[in-house]
Amino acid sequence: MAGKGTVYLVGAGQGAPDLLTVRAVKILERADVVFHDALVHSETLALASGARIVAVGKRCGRLSTAQHFINKQLADAAQRFEVVVRFKGGDPMLFGRAQEEIDALRQAGVRVEIVPGVSAALSASAEVGQSLTQRGVSRSVTLLTPWVGTGEAVHDWAQPAASADTIALYMASRQASAISEGLIAAGVWPSRPAVFVENASLPSRRIITTRVGDLAESAQQLGNGPTLLLLGSVYESIVSTAQRNGTDQRITA
Amino acid sequence: MAGKGTVYLVGAGQGAPDLLTVRAVKILERADVVFHDALVHSETLALASGARIVAVGKRCGRLSTAQHFINKQLADAAQRFEVVVRFKGGDPMLFGRAQEEIDALRQAGVRVEIVPGVSAALSASAEVGQSLTQRGVSRSVTLLTPWVGTGEAVHDWAQPAASADTIALYMASRQASAISEGLIAAGVWPSRPAVFVENASLPSRRIITTRVGDLAESAQQLGNGPTLLLLGSVYESIVSTAQRNGTDQRITA
Repeated sequence: MAGKGTVYLVGAGQGAPDLLTVRAVKILERADVVFHDALVHSETLALASGARIVAVGKRCGRLSTAQHFINKQLADAAQRFEVVVRFKGGDPMLFGRAQEEIDALRQAGVRVEIVPGVSAALSASAEVGQSLTQRGVSRSVTLLTPWVGTGEAVHDWAQPAASADTIALYMASRQASAISEGLIAAGVWPSRPAVFVENASLPSRRIITTRVGDLAESAQQLGNGPTLLLLGSVYESIVSTAQRNGTDQRITA
Repeated sequence: MAGKGTVYLVGAGQGAPDLLTVRAVKILERADVVFHDALVHSETLALASGARIVAVGKRCGRLSTAQHFINKQLADAAQRFEVVVRFKGGDPMLFGRAQEEIDALRQAGVRVEIVPGVSAALSASAEVGQSLTQRGVSRSVTLLTPWVGTGEAVHDWAQPAASADTIALYMASRQASAISEGLIAAGVWPSRPAVFVENASLPSRRIITTRVGDLAESAQQLGNGPTLLLLGSVYESIVSTAQRNGTDQRITA
């Protein structure tokens, strides 16, 4: 059953095309076919000049193409081509649903290689200019996604946030009031400083400083781009400075 | 007081030189001077062909050059040169002590730009072939460093690990028995599957599957390279397969 090709699960980095790794560039240049998410930059896709480009359009956790169909497309492509790229925004191993694809491909006898990428928490931190960890303030970082549906588990998603020093919440642009409630129910103080980072590393980036209790109001200033929410004591200085200056929006120089 | 130069805090990625971003390559090529840690690959430094290269030799949290002296060197260099690179293994904003340098430089009126990099948890996950998050198994990842000194806080460091689904413990090669004790004291089950990844993405990489209660014994197989410890239910299949096969060491294909 093993085809001739390898499927490369490649992290595109977050936002700007030059946040791609050198390894990813070299694989793209050799690619026969590239399956990509909506979050991958068009300039980055242009690097795969010899490849057929197939949009499979997952974005922010919404499933546009059913996962089992993507799995089948990847396995089929590996029968026909040598270099098959599955291109994901950020890093494939972090909120990228990579495991479902890895497992399906291995079961089909297809070689899989993973190329890591710059995840959103890192590019957002570079944008904000504040380190996720900081001596004497933060020794741990928790990365998670909100689960703001209905049902018994509605607030459980925020539990890991309660004991972390710094929190990076992925896919945070929607239902900010439910996120705020979930965090507070998990024991996060409403006054805890928070920073929304939309479109990190892109010219259209937007940084909004706020506090956990005010997320819903602040989120009204967000657009439709991918958004990360950073929170924790390390952001106190940024948030209180912005509040003193009467602005809750701050773009780094 | 503002000098003519910009200090770029650049993430070198973890391990292999081709895990550097395209943005980092371009900055290195323009660099006048590069201050780097011991963890940065020599091939990567060679990209800065026009620059003076200065080793400031921090590794695994040990301080070889005093931080305030590094801060002063960076600020002084920005008075004399246009492109000053502060090069750090992995990503600067995650366990990179970046904030002390950012704050000192800003206070000295020096422009600072941060270029994110691939952090060790991501390159180790690519190496192991297991996603940090996985639908139905892991919705959160906590990144932390152990604090295995003496004193009252000796076990507190592990608290955030108790409620996270997946844990990536940076700088985990030393004092594995203290790490094991700290995790168990924080409520992590001794049977929880764990994977040591040493020298991720380098030819000398070593992957050792184990369980939280057996860290001390397994760590004896580690060398002196930078080591990450991954743990959580997502590794159950890898660890139990290795145990069934009578091997606790596993190198991905």
